Amino acid sequence: MNLNAYGYGPADARKWIIVDIGVTFGREDTTPGVDLILPDPQYLVEERENILGIVLTHAHEDHIGALAWLWPRLKAPVYATPFTAALVREKLKERGLLEKVPLTLIPLKGKLELGPFDIEFVTLTHSIPEPNGLAIRTPLGMVWHTGDWKIDPDPLIGETTDEETLRAMADEGILAMVCDSTNVFVEGTTGSEAEVREKLTQVIAGCTGRVAVTAFASNVARVETALQAARACGRTPCLVGRSMHRIVGAAQSVGLLQDIPHLIDEEEAGGLPRENLLLLCTGSQGEPRAALSRIARNEHRHVTLREGDTVIFSSRVIPGNEMAIHALYNAFLERGVKLITADEDHLIHVSGHPARDELKQMYQWARPQIAVPVHGERRHILEHVKLAQSLQVPEAIAPNNGDLIRLAPGPAALVDEVPSGRLFVDGATIVEADDDALRDRRRIAAEGAIHVTFALNAKSGIVAGPTASVRGLATEDEEEFDLALADLEGAAKAAFNKLGHAERDDDEAVEANVMRAVRKAAEKLWRKRPLVDVSVLRL
Amino acid sequence: MNLNAYGYGPADARKWIIVDIGVTFGREDTTPGVDLILPDPQYLVEERENILGIVLTHAHEDHIGALAWLWPRLKAPVYATPFTAALVREKLKERGLLEKVPLTLIPLKGKLELGPFDIEFVTLTHSIPEPNGLAIRTPLGMVWHTGDWKIDPDPLIGETTDEETLRAMADEGILAMVCDSTNVFVEGTTGSEAEVREKLTQVIAGCTGRVAVTAFASNVARVETALQAARACGRTPCLVGRSMHRIVGAAQSVGLLQDIPHLIDEEEAGGLPRENLLLLCTGSQGEPRAALSRIARNEHRHVTLREGDTVIFSSRVIPGNEMAIHALYNAFLERGVKLITADEDHLIHVSGHPARDELKQMYQWARPQIAVPVHGERRHILEHVKLAQSLQVPEAIAPNNGDLIRLAPGPAALVDEVPSGRLFVDGATIVEADDDALRDRRRIAAEGAIHVTFALNAKSGIVAGPTASVRGLATEDEEEFDLALADLEGAAKAAFNKLGHAERDDDEAVEANVMRAVRKAAEKLWRKRPLVDVSVLRL
Repeated sequence: MNLNAYGYGPADARKWIIVDIGVTFGREDTTPGVDLILPDPQYLVEERENILGIVLTHAHEDHIGALAWLWPRLKAPVYATPFTAALVREKLKERGLLEKVPLTLIPLKGKLELGPFDIEFVTLTHSIPEPNGLAIRTPLGMVWHTGDWKIDPDPLIGETTDEETLRAMADEGILAMVCDSTNVFVEGTTGSEAEVREKLTQVIAGCTGRVAVTAFASNVARVETALQAARACGRTPCLVGRSMHRIVGAAQSVGLLQDIPHLIDEEEAGGLPRENLLLLCTGSQGEPRAALSRIARNEHRHVTLREGDTVIFSSRVIPGNEMAIHALYNAFLERGVKLITADEDHLIHVSGHPARDELKQMYQWARPQIAVPVHGERRHILEHVKLAQSLQVPEAIAPNNGDLIRLAPGPAALVDEVPSGRLFVDGATIVEADDDALRDRRRIAAEGAIHVTFALNAKSGIVAGPTASVRGLATEDEEEFDLALADLEGAAKAAFNKLGHAERDDDEAVEANVMRAVRKAAEKLWRKRPLVDVSVLRL
Repeated sequence: MNLNAYGYGPADARKWIIVDIGVTFGREDTTPGVDLILPDPQYLVEERENILGIVLTHAHEDHIGALAWLWPRLKAPVYATPFTAALVREKLKERGLLEKVPLTLIPLKGKLELGPFDIEFVTLTHSIPEPNGLAIRTPLGMVWHTGDWKIDPDPLIGETTDEETLRAMADEGILAMVCDSTNVFVEGTTGSEAEVREKLTQVIAGCTGRVAVTAFASNVARVETALQAARACGRTPCLVGRSMHRIVGAAQSVGLLQDIPHLIDEEEAGGLPRENLLLLCTGSQGEPRAALSRIARNEHRHVTLREGDTVIFSSRVIPGNEMAIHALYNAFLERGVKLITADEDHLIHVSGHPARDELKQMYQWARPQIAVPVHGERRHILEHVKLAQSLQVPEAIAPNNGDLIRLAPGPAALVDEVPSGRLFVDGATIVEADDDALRDRRRIAAEGAIHVTFALNAKSGIVAGPTASVRGLATEDEEEFDLALADLEGAAKAAFNKLGHAERDDDEAVEANVMRAVRKAAEKLWRKRPLVDVSVLRL
């Protein structure tokens, strides 16, 4: 291989590993009809033959959720620890890929060699089982990729942060640290799952009536806390919501949650005295189709809450979900259901991401040459750069999506910007964010749509129509609506009649002219700019 | 008049006054195409002949914004103090109603008799000039309607809370207090505009480069603060955004903002040295078309900000606007613009609504028999009821929209629920929230739309088409799209061919059957449920 001045070969000889491949969720209000949003892998697809593997740090959706959707485009082998692999396998199964994807299990604290990348899984703590950072050793130095983490002195499930290995890595020398920025604005430390267990048990012990606890299902330690608190308080726990069942199953498949009380089925939960039941529900973010929202709207098939019952939000409010969560609060309060949230009682929830003192501790442990903050909005990443600089990290870089960064040799630098973006999962189709289909839907959502049809004979004379069909534009009453239709049809006819013979023979010319005239008429009628389509049928 | 057992006559003899008539704003994400949301006045329209007047407490949009839209349906005389009236007149003018609406000016602390209602305007403090509570004396007792208020010991503009009158009213006896609930979850007091003036002047004095301050334009005291701070710091102020100009004009028309420094025009602001300019901008809530968002995107015609400049958010984050505001933060930080927000420095903004200690003070002043909390989400109103109970108010009621409440005689009670709801201003049309047009737009936004057209001859034989037109449904490429069209057209044709002769002659039967078949085909192709329309042209 011919190395260039910077010590690396031509682009086609570059070797790649992908660390994590996550999703974000679509929302009914901002991206109607779109369930999932994926990263656009276009650039990596072009580099496909040089991708040595996809290495997963942990099983949260924003780290693994796109794998089953994008793997067919990338076709690289996948590596994960057992719990992560269990959840990945379910996703692959759903999309019929289980037999196709080479998925290799890596034990906790295991190692993996992929071409020039010598990868060591380092045990950290987070809000899910098996959070791993990756020590990626290369001929040009070690990159320490933290994944998501916090410092939990008592995580309840799994070991504590592997401080010894971190210190040894630092002694060996860490070139760059790619690090979680989520809580960079939060002072102090985040607190421990053990503290939550103590507090939540106390809080549940003080409740009368039914208790519903809502938390992220993937936080298995928290799930265990709720189940054990139920037992301690003489309550039988009941899982409500699909992902609770899914995660408990996955956890048990890798040997977790072995000592939990008997779980009662939703269908039978109603038979228990109210003070002997604990519901563990999905839907802490006010997701309209999740268990808690259904219960709040009194639309759940098996479970109801009423005056004297309590809902405990063992969760935070994810930005953007404020209104949906407040709607939940309002619905429960209206029926006299008591609410306990982390707003009033901080220790019923702790974050999974490092607050500033934990970030400082990590920088002290790792002592990297270069800080590469990731995982946050722009303001988080920029603040994280400032924090690293204040801790005397020699170099810090604030990457944007698509930035190609050279870490070595020479000073760290942005060397290229490669295509990046978002893909939307729309029904069965993966759609680019700027696809006409989505643009049209947004346009119609705001402005409405009109379709005009007419039939022309061989001489391009109108033999039927024009007929206008209107969607999404309102009138005061039927009569006004009929008048509006007549207006639109009149405008279409007039526009057609103005055309010369040659234009009348040309479908595109007919459609374009009629479309403009109808849109103008619609603007006058409604002060809106609907999307207008014209169909010309020729006999 | 024959009085019934409760002491009031038949419904058609009831007399009404309307206190305030406000709007909320539509959002591009949740209500695309809808700018304003109005209360549905249907019930009041039926009672129109018994409505004696519309009395406005103050000029915020959520108290006056619907007047110009709904007045033509209500046609009642309108009463307001001078500043409120100045802004109302502008709105009436915009909708061509200035000459039609009888608008009577009431002086501050003025009185107004409307049938059995003897109304006294009581001066309070809030975040806008001329906030009035209404002491509404009736033969059955006094209702004290606070409007929006806080207790600002030094509001800078206008007098302080008219404590003397409040105490005298209490001595006379207040039957019911209808009271603001917005900040019932906030402990302590909200602080004073005078404190903000001191703090903001200090903060601006410490800035280098350009300074942009964003605040609600309607807070004239805050606007004056920014202008005076500019003068104190050797900066020339420049108003950026239409509503800043509108409110400053209205304020000056009633004698406010008389002693302000010279304002420089946007067009000329660029000529000043950066450290000599202060921009006072609209858009604190991240509204995409407001001045601050345009500046953040670097799309403002005259004004730019860059590294070394500062943006001061003298505002709060209104729930629901978190993401839009964070996007603003990110855009400014990306370009090295420094941000100062009320998160870090509480005294650069104070709320206009009473925190708990102020609420307690008001209850001590007013000593009402009945508490009627309004102005808040359900959780605020329910908490306010609890607070009133804890203060030993004998009765408290938690009204929902549309509740008809009897305050006297006898115990306070919900006596009826009348129609209520929301109307959407959609272009030039006022549309009911459940109108088919809006439902169709939501459906198409999520699922897409298909239009199928064909022409039938006199014997109901197909002579042209079916032609399918698809909007909002994506395919991988053109070829797949053409195949999809062929599928849809094939399904349409097959469905038609299955029909008997009588059905083929019946447009509705043809449309319904073809629609179902095409939707089924679309579901198979896209796993979506598009809105399908069918046009049958008959020759």
